[in-house]
Amino acid sequence: MLVDKTVRDLLTAFSSSDPTPGGGSASALASSIGASLLMMVAGLPKTRTNADEERAALEKAALVLNGLRRELTDAIDADTAAYDQVVAAFKLPKATPQEQEARKAAIQRALRTATDVPLGVVRLSMQALAQAAIVAAHGNPSAASDVGVAKALLAAGADGARMNVEINLDGVKDDAYREAVRAELSALAGVA
Amino acid sequence: MLVDKTVRDLLTAFSSSDPTPGGGSASALASSIGASLLMMVAGLPKTRTNADEERAALEKAALVLNGLRRELTDAIDADTAAYDQVVAAFKLPKATPQEQEARKAAIQRALRTATDVPLGVVRLSMQALAQAAIVAAHGNPSAASDVGVAKALLAAGADGARMNVEINLDGVKDDAYREAVRAELSALAGVA
Repeated sequence: MLVDKTVRDLLTAFSSSDPTPGGGSASALASSIGASLLMMVAGLPKTRTNADEERAALEKAALVLNGLRRELTDAIDADTAAYDQVVAAFKLPKATPQEQEARKAAIQRALRTATDVPLGVVRLSMQALAQAAIVAAHGNPSAASDVGVAKALLAAGADGARMNVEINLDGVKDDAYREAVRAELSALAGVA
Repeated sequence: MLVDKTVRDLLTAFSSSDPTPGGGSASALASSIGASLLMMVAGLPKTRTNADEERAALEKAALVLNGLRRELTDAIDADTAAYDQVVAAFKLPKATPQEQEARKAAIQRALRTATDVPLGVVRLSMQALAQAAIVAAHGNPSAASDVGVAKALLAAGADGARMNVEINLDGVKDDAYREAVRAELSALAGVA
């Protein structure tokens, strides 16, 4: 799995001319780092005012961020697996009408998964950005730059994932699905 | 070293309430991923028009990006080491005037390094963004989303590093150094 590689080896994998891992996994990783930094700030011994309610709000944010971070981290490998499935589907035999039909269906299934995974990353990144506001309001002000970096990475992860949704969605033939995904993307953009 | 950890372990390290690794190393990592993705697109077998001059331009970009990527990757650990030095300097003894003087000097040296490292990341990220324009113009259009993700990550890495420059620069007492760094930051922002 990509997340079990060393950072050095993962960077080498991103830079190789093999199609995966690519921008989708990179976006999920960027958002995972952003969510992790917010967890760090939420867990610092000092808070802005050291009031009990503030500590409770940060503990709650840390729990939410921990779940988001876990799902974002899973998406690093899921995005690469989904793209590999698209490539595999395009390579299926197409000599007979039956094969052509099966290949077309496999491509459509794979493209949907390759759309759903980055759509999930957009969603999770926006949820983490909502927690960033809580962490910024109550966290130790000396960690303000860590919160700022986290927000920049989550925004970049969301933007990157959105580009991956759009490029894969273009190949999906189901109009209702396409419209639903576009509508959700617009709604999520409004949250930012 | 951080870059020898697995991705999973590095994310855990970012999320722990220990002060390092923090936003500075995260910014360097984001830009390293961005530069790596651009190398991938520059190395794809197909280019936009498959013309020889285009292939040559992309090969040159890949060489430049490889150097930038190497330096950005070094900065992941250098930023954490620099911040650890700042923390260590603040913990030096301050019982006698001599100790106070030595501590003050150590803090100033450490803060300069902790400013120079993220300033380098801003510089390298902007240089990589300049290569992104070449890769976008000549690279395989099917990898357009990878270029888009790379640009988003490099911009986020540059923004994050800039925040780290500013926070550490605030503690530096040398006016000439402060002005020089602020002038370079403005000049680099103009490049974007």
